[in-house]
Amino acid sequence: MRYLAVVSYDGSNYAGYQIQPDQLTIQAVIEQALAKMHKGKPIKITASGRTDAGVHAHGQVFHYDSELAIPEANWKKALNSLLPDDIVIFKVKEVTSSFHARYDALKKTYQYVILNSDDPNPFEVNYSTFIAEELDVSLINAACQYLIGEHDFTAFCAANSSVKGDKIRTIYDAHCKQDRDRLILSFTGNGFLYNMVRIIVGTLIEIGQGKRPVTDIQRIISSKDRSQAGKTAPAQGLYLNHVEYEAEK
Amino acid sequence: MRYLAVVSYDGSNYAGYQIQPDQLTIQAVIEQALAKMHKGKPIKITASGRTDAGVHAHGQVFHYDSELAIPEANWKKALNSLLPDDIVIFKVKEVTSSFHARYDALKKTYQYVILNSDDPNPFEVNYSTFIAEELDVSLINAACQYLIGEHDFTAFCAANSSVKGDKIRTIYDAHCKQDRDRLILSFTGNGFLYNMVRIIVGTLIEIGQGKRPVTDIQRIISSKDRSQAGKTAPAQGLYLNHVEYEAEK
Repeated sequence: MRYLAVVSYDGSNYAGYQIQPDQLTIQAVIEQALAKMHKGKPIKITASGRTDAGVHAHGQVFHYDSELAIPEANWKKALNSLLPDDIVIFKVKEVTSSFHARYDALKKTYQYVILNSDDPNPFEVNYSTFIAEELDVSLINAACQYLIGEHDFTAFCAANSSVKGDKIRTIYDAHCKQDRDRLILSFTGNGFLYNMVRIIVGTLIEIGQGKRPVTDIQRIISSKDRSQAGKTAPAQGLYLNHVEYEAEK
Repeated sequence: MRYLAVVSYDGSNYAGYQIQPDQLTIQAVIEQALAKMHKGKPIKITASGRTDAGVHAHGQVFHYDSELAIPEANWKKALNSLLPDDIVIFKVKEVTSSFHARYDALKKTYQYVILNSDDPNPFEVNYSTFIAEELDVSLINAACQYLIGEHDFTAFCAANSSVKGDKIRTIYDAHCKQDRDRLILSFTGNGFLYNMVRIIVGTLIEIGQGKRPVTDIQRIISSKDRSQAGKTAPAQGLYLNHVEYEAEK
């Protein structure tokens, strides 16, 4: 039987999603919990994609196969009782054996949180990026419009990326909302390259500071040159928010 | 010159406020930063009171003496540049040499945050206490009324407390507000005994669950017996919110 699971995690204490030798990772911890439920038999999970060290998730999706026929609600309970408190399963659902959490993902939404205030907040060290200098939200939103559409995002991809295939992606929505001293940037696309959201955010921050013109986004996309884009924004402000699939999950 | 400082801290990674050998404490880290500013000379700080391991502060107040005549805004900047990101100084103010952060404190306000929802929140492991069972806020508020006034709070003081003097304290305000799935309990008093807020909260939780009658607060106070009160609620939901002094700080 194949199962789909929706998981939220606080990435602060993890070396990212993907399993790595001698590192505490989200994948390793979830696979460990599943192995416990299967009398030690290793169970591999496949997520919609990885998240970097320090990056959080509100609605990461993964699938796994199991011979155990457990009701969906009990899977959730059993897994949560075995997982640490900073990883919480919100839903487990039986799916057809052809479902694939990565290949079938149609859209992903990432959010990036910036604390734009006079003083930093000691409670948000791991949960947002602090910028004291006032950012112009209207400039950021104007720049976001140039991101929307199908583009070759080579310039917004980490130079050391090992992505195979082209770097053409479609962004359906990009905008910035202000909630008091908090800016929440949101990006929905059919896929994102390695570090793409963080490089976009780093560039938008410089636009919000007036250091770059709004139209720079167009110029950077055309250049296909990573060095034309802004700095990679820190991991701790980034959240994988939602993954959408064809059929209702 | 005597200075007063207002500090917020995320207590998650600290063994409490008060200095202890071989432990990372808020006091030790602030005194270290001050020593750096004084060419290694030790500078002692005196806070309004201690907070336990894992307890947070939004407006802890301390005082210290220094021969350095630095403008208030520069004290703040210099200290924050030396302190870790989870300790933030919001204000430094010169005060008269007779000011004492502990003895002159007139009122303190503590808040306690309970996440009362179906699912726990992986991002709040260190910042609230999760209770899945629905709590009755009106029962908690009714019980809060019995806390208000001058009482001997012996029954709400940790049995191993080494408090000298009487255990009579005055609570000016106690109430519980609901904000979606979050209950925020607030307590203002002229002083609080060791673990007093956490034992009060533990008792109020049981009242909110219907396990104790609202009037139990009266009975427990009269008993002067710690074993009559509820469990000590976990540290991570507790915040020292505000300390009030006679003259405007």
